[in-house]
Amino acid sequence: MTVVREAVKATLRAQTIETPSWGYGNSGTRFKVFAQPGVPRTPWEKLEDAAKVHEFTGVAPKVSLHIPWDEVEDYAALAAYAEDHGLRLGAINANTFQDDAYKLGSVCHPDAHVRRRAVDHLLACVDIMDATGSSDLKLWFADGTNYPGQDDVSARQERLAESLATVYARLGEDQRILLEYKFFEPAFYTTDVPDWGTAYAHCLKLGPKAQVVVDTGHHAPGTNIEFIVALLLREGRLGGFDFNSRFYADDDLMAGAADPFQLFRIMYEVIRGGGLAAETGIAFMLDQCHNIEAKVPAVIRSVMNVQEATAKALLVDHDALASAQRTGDVLAANAVLMDAYATDVRPLLREVRGEAGLNADPVAAYAASGWSEKTATERVGGEQAGWGA
Amino acid sequence: MTVVREAVKATLRAQTIETPSWGYGNSGTRFKVFAQPGVPRTPWEKLEDAAKVHEFTGVAPKVSLHIPWDEVEDYAALAAYAEDHGLRLGAINANTFQDDAYKLGSVCHPDAHVRRRAVDHLLACVDIMDATGSSDLKLWFADGTNYPGQDDVSARQERLAESLATVYARLGEDQRILLEYKFFEPAFYTTDVPDWGTAYAHCLKLGPKAQVVVDTGHHAPGTNIEFIVALLLREGRLGGFDFNSRFYADDDLMAGAADPFQLFRIMYEVIRGGGLAAETGIAFMLDQCHNIEAKVPAVIRSVMNVQEATAKALLVDHDALASAQRTGDVLAANAVLMDAYATDVRPLLREVRGEAGLNADPVAAYAASGWSEKTATERVGGEQAGWGA
Amino acid sequence: MTVVREAVKATLRAQTIETPSWGYGNSGTRFKVFAQPGVPRTPWEKLEDAAKVHEFTGVAPKVSLHIPWDEVEDYAALAAYAEDHGLRLGAINANTFQDDAYKLGSVCHPDAHVRRRAVDHLLACVDIMDATGSSDLKLWFADGTNYPGQDDVSARQERLAESLATVYARLGEDQRILLEYKFFEPAFYTTDVPDWGTAYAHCLKLGPKAQVVVDTGHHAPGTNIEFIVALLLREGRLGGFDFNSRFYADDDLMAGAADPFQLFRIMYEVIRGGGLAAETGIAFMLDQCHNIEAKVPAVIRSVMNVQEATAKALLVDHDALASAQRTGDVLAANAVLMDAYATDVRPLLREVRGEAGLNADPVAAYAASGWSEKTATERVGGEQAGWGA
Amino acid sequence: MTVVREAVKATLRAQTIETPSWGYGNSGTRFKVFAQPGVPRTPWEKLEDAAKVHEFTGVAPKVSLHIPWDEVEDYAALAAYAEDHGLRLGAINANTFQDDAYKLGSVCHPDAHVRRRAVDHLLACVDIMDATGSSDLKLWFADGTNYPGQDDVSARQERLAESLATVYARLGEDQRILLEYKFFEPAFYTTDVPDWGTAYAHCLKLGPKAQVVVDTGHHAPGTNIEFIVALLLREGRLGGFDFNSRFYADDDLMAGAADPFQLFRIMYEVIRGGGLAAETGIAFMLDQCHNIEAKVPAVIRSVMNVQEATAKALLVDHDALASAQRTGDVLAANAVLMDAYATDVRPLLREVRGEAGLNADPVAAYAASGWSEKTATERVGGEQAGWGA
Repeated sequence: MTVVREAVKATLRAQTIETPSWGYGNSGTRFKVFAQPGVPRTPWEKLEDAAKVHEFTGVAPKVSLHIPWDEVEDYAALAAYAEDHGLRLGAINANTFQDDAYKLGSVCHPDAHVRRRAVDHLLACVDIMDATGSSDLKLWFADGTNYPGQDDVSARQERLAESLATVYARLGEDQRILLEYKFFEPAFYTTDVPDWGTAYAHCLKLGPKAQVVVDTGHHAPGTNIEFIVALLLREGRLGGFDFNSRFYADDDLMAGAADPFQLFRIMYEVIRGGGLAAETGIAFMLDQCHNIEAKVPAVIRSVMNVQEATAKALLVDHDALASAQRTGDVLAANAVLMDAYATDVRPLLREVRGEAGLNADPVAAYAASGWSEKTATERVGGEQAGWGA
Repeated sequence: MTVVREAVKATLRAQTIETPSWGYGNSGTRFKVFAQPGVPRTPWEKLEDAAKVHEFTGVAPKVSLHIPWDEVEDYAALAAYAEDHGLRLGAINANTFQDDAYKLGSVCHPDAHVRRRAVDHLLACVDIMDATGSSDLKLWFADGTNYPGQDDVSARQERLAESLATVYARLGEDQRILLEYKFFEPAFYTTDVPDWGTAYAHCLKLGPKAQVVVDTGHHAPGTNIEFIVALLLREGRLGGFDFNSRFYADDDLMAGAADPFQLFRIMYEVIRGGGLAAETGIAFMLDQCHNIEAKVPAVIRSVMNVQEATAKALLVDHDALASAQRTGDVLAANAVLMDAYATDVRPLLREVRGEAGLNADPVAAYAASGWSEKTATERVGGEQAGWGA
Repeated sequence: MTVVREAVKATLRAQTIETPSWGYGNSGTRFKVFAQPGVPRTPWEKLEDAAKVHEFTGVAPKVSLHIPWDEVEDYAALAAYAEDHGLRLGAINANTFQDDAYKLGSVCHPDAHVRRRAVDHLLACVDIMDATGSSDLKLWFADGTNYPGQDDVSARQERLAESLATVYARLGEDQRILLEYKFFEPAFYTTDVPDWGTAYAHCLKLGPKAQVVVDTGHHAPGTNIEFIVALLLREGRLGGFDFNSRFYADDDLMAGAADPFQLFRIMYEVIRGGGLAAETGIAFMLDQCHNIEAKVPAVIRSVMNVQEATAKALLVDHDALASAQRTGDVLAANAVLMDAYATDVRPLLREVRGEAGLNADPVAAYAASGWSEKTATERVGGEQAGWGA
Repeated sequence: MTVVREAVKATLRAQTIETPSWGYGNSGTRFKVFAQPGVPRTPWEKLEDAAKVHEFTGVAPKVSLHIPWDEVEDYAALAAYAEDHGLRLGAINANTFQDDAYKLGSVCHPDAHVRRRAVDHLLACVDIMDATGSSDLKLWFADGTNYPGQDDVSARQERLAESLATVYARLGEDQRILLEYKFFEPAFYTTDVPDWGTAYAHCLKLGPKAQVVVDTGHHAPGTNIEFIVALLLREGRLGGFDFNSRFYADDDLMAGAADPFQLFRIMYEVIRGGGLAAETGIAFMLDQCHNIEAKVPAVIRSVMNVQEATAKALLVDHDALASAQRTGDVLAANAVLMDAYATDVRPLLREVRGEAGLNADPVAAYAASGWSEKTATERVGGEQAGWGA
């Protein structure tokens, strides 16, 4: 048991959660964006906030960028700035949905000029990856249609495939495409990559450097996400996660806030499929909007929620589970899983943090650090970062 | 049969559909608002657009306002301007979700000062109603919470009831509250008026001048909206509709675009319950966002969709239906309904328009009018109307 | 803190969970019912199984009956048999969906003869209540339609109201109607009591002895059940629960199995609204189908899941929560709730059981009791109890 | 225009819709199966009913069988009997969900003996295909789990792949596997083939003789089915349809009854992708349950609904649509589609029937034929066909 406990702790120590630069900026709904004091005004300030999350949790050393929201003149300098703050730059998220040209789509647009513009942006993102040392090009396309008949579903797939192929050809040896799917929004009738099956089919055709990203908020009601995780892992096509949570549509709440049991089941499937091993390269990213809650502590809390789900999943007694499954003892098998889930893993995680020289309570430590007050005071003037919708 | 046809035509001629001032402005999703040329810059210009819809359809003489989006100095002048354009001002829509104070709610906010501010706004809207001659105060509250524990569900109901009572007391004799419910968005965990039951319970307590508004996009997946319509009509608590359509969440697409059969079923229940009779006072309003499609023709199209659904519902052979229902002939009863739905009512509506001196094809007539080109040329400079999110 | 702990333990000791007689019988889906060895063949044997659940959990002293599945000649004798086994008979569940006459409905059927037949059955159930000393008539109506047009929605409401009024008039002083709603199934287009609003509206008209039952599996996808619980409690119209859980439709899985966090949130609202107090009379019932898992231990497990959710909800620090809510600290308020949820309450419950002279582990104790083997051996021949669909 | 009309009529004349043998038998929900008079007692009598559907519609010459529900001694004789009645035998539907051994699954069961039993059944179905001349083995697996932890998701996929490979190897040259997916039911936590992506991935690995079947009732709420149709067509992996309709879960109502616009959109994508061409081999099957409505006329009605959706889809003006799509005119493109949908195609279909020597009104013709009365009188005694759940 002690052996298990130590192994669990070692795995938890090794865990890496990537936080999104945009999670530190303002965000909201189509109805209103409520600005918050102290919000970063530049990519550099976002990195400073991200550094705080890593400082207090110890497991968030990577930051995803979003282009053009995080556009800077010198990406190498940005990477160096990250490193100075104990961070690395992670996935580059392309944005092909905010240019006026993209009203009817980007890489799937009927007009070849618009598609070219979008592809050029994607290629520019790979250039940025070269500069930052990022390996992951994360692609989420807002492309789709709002009305039946608006465009040709099949032709849009053709254009998508062609656009992706162009970008794929540009990837460096250690670079990959992480292709994200989403059920709906902002398109309201068809979405060009609406489900894992579509993303998977495109990745298969592109080649081994294309993998699927599972955003936990991007599914139809009732979808069994952990099933998809198990399948993609089995196929070697799980590239990573965009963690967040939701009760309804793509609510982008803090990971683990809406359905902590689901997050546990997902992490269980990740572990069952060997997905925590570094060599699988699965990126554990957050993708959230902190509309009404304080942003840095919300990210901290989300990181902790992922840690707790992971810890519980690591505690599942695999032998007991396998045995109950083999004998078809439904209740016993379920009980093994639930036993791990019912465990309060917070003491274990406090221990892990203590042994790593961290405060056992990251939320309290952050609050005590004065960072929130400091940024609220100092980050005055300029334009706060946001989505720019 | 000719008699029926004439009665149907008379009803269609008498139909009144209210269009929303904000439907003529820019709108979008949290990801992007795509501006369109020629979009109105003022409430006055919105009325001019609305007048075009009425000019070509003949059944859209009323316009809902949204305060503060349609704030003007002199509401009586606005009403007069409407009249000059053949219009009347309809429901006044209050907005208690875009002030920075409303981050955690308005009439349900834990802080009494914020609630007071919100109630004051609602009272000011009644003042506007006095000036415009509007009878309807339409209340949709964005109030709710994003996270479990964030606030006390029951206390929020208490505050809501108190706020509503204050406003109700201020209503003039011919004024009423139309209380709208919404499943979710922008709140992501609880919404303070999430369903018809909650709206109905509040209306019951307020009194006869409080009625429920059914926004067709504000329900859980799979909800049978026409059932709710039938129930509210039966209880005398159906105040009106916010028509629009959706495939997923609150997509706010053109009415009848996503599920024309549903719109037909709704109109059938309206007619079955006597809801088309003017004395019921049911307001048939649109509440839509034309994010990527041209706005004025989209409103025209929506009005026509409501007309077509109404026409089909009017054609249902009530005697045949009642007879099949009485004898429990499931297929025959369904066939009677479907027979009306399968009918192409466009010739009938063209006839109705022709007899009213209108072009039989409102979309073509609008296109030929040059209004779109004219506004695109002339409405230059200033700030286009939008949601201001 | 010790004081709190003792109060929590006292509450947990006083908790009463009612188990359903049909949960001990065979059940399945429309595709197949898999029979299990040892399943009771009579209501008397069901009571024996229920007695085991109470013997090992200490909190399940009541059993709901379902008529005609639990039809016996002498209900007083059945009540006495229950008492001999340490049990009381709880709610009487009426069945107006399995008679061939009910193909198109029961209390809402277009034919008055069928309605009369259904009402007679309900009245007979009240007779049974008189004999068994049950106070609750639980009414779930399978009534509805499968196709648009099949019957008149409003007329069916009228018939429903009339039928309910007849039954209500027959209730004894300490008897009540518990009216259940259900989103869909077995009807596939309209259901005559599809949501809490409809049930509530009928209860209002009937009088104080009519209350709403919340079956946790009977909602549209995404519905916030705890919100409904809070509302009904506030209105004094929450009569009880049918606990079970689901991932999709009305899956009738073990309570707490699919979304333990939801069950916790529901129990939190119950406690917040004072609903655990005996005088509120809220019935905490299970309504489940153990299709593939062993039945008695599945009921035990469900009872324990409700206990654990209750224990966690009791641990919420109300002062800290209220304070965070008052100051609008979203993260702090959520953290207070999540702190209670993250707690492993199993040690506490083991303690409660130990102090009550029970084995700390009901599942293990039941397994060791040999009851399962004994019934499998002895209950041979005859017809196993089931739904008789 | 006349040319188009003639081409449309030719296509409608050539259309083939396959009806399911089980659609003529009794069916119901888990709550109750309501038996109907005149229901067939044998596969032979089911064919007689199916022959009536073809006699009056002219487009339903094929019948799907379900084994073991349609087990007979001599399948060649059954095929000959079909031919005598103007029919051909279509897909053979395997059943691996009603044997007691399948409680925890069939081809995915943890126990190799159970899997072998299931695979043997599938191989036996191919034998039957050899005897009947059927080309399609339709596989729907009820396999899945009800509780988290119950079995290993990934191991079940492995077993599924292995089982499928064995069956695939046995297929004759002109035989194929049609693999069906289903969101949930009867399994309530995981389903082993829950979505088109999973079915597609398995088909890819099996080879060209494995294709996906789209059952219109087997999707998550809100799923865009026509998108899936377009994708599978594009990939050459659309094997066929199980048409039916639903408002909620897998309601199995008559095709086109719940959302006729959706059926039209699906048929539009079929036509757009060339799927009506005989050489694509797409099987247009019905898979429905007529629980409360008369069965033969319900099948007739469903066939007509598919015909009407097809006719409308054929009327879409492709040039106008393509042009509007190319220029990004959202409203115009939508209008082209809606124009076809709004058309009343019943006169056209009456014409098609008349020219084929059929009564223009199949429902009335069937009613007048006296078949219903005849079977009700003559099919007395014996056991009515049903699902045998």
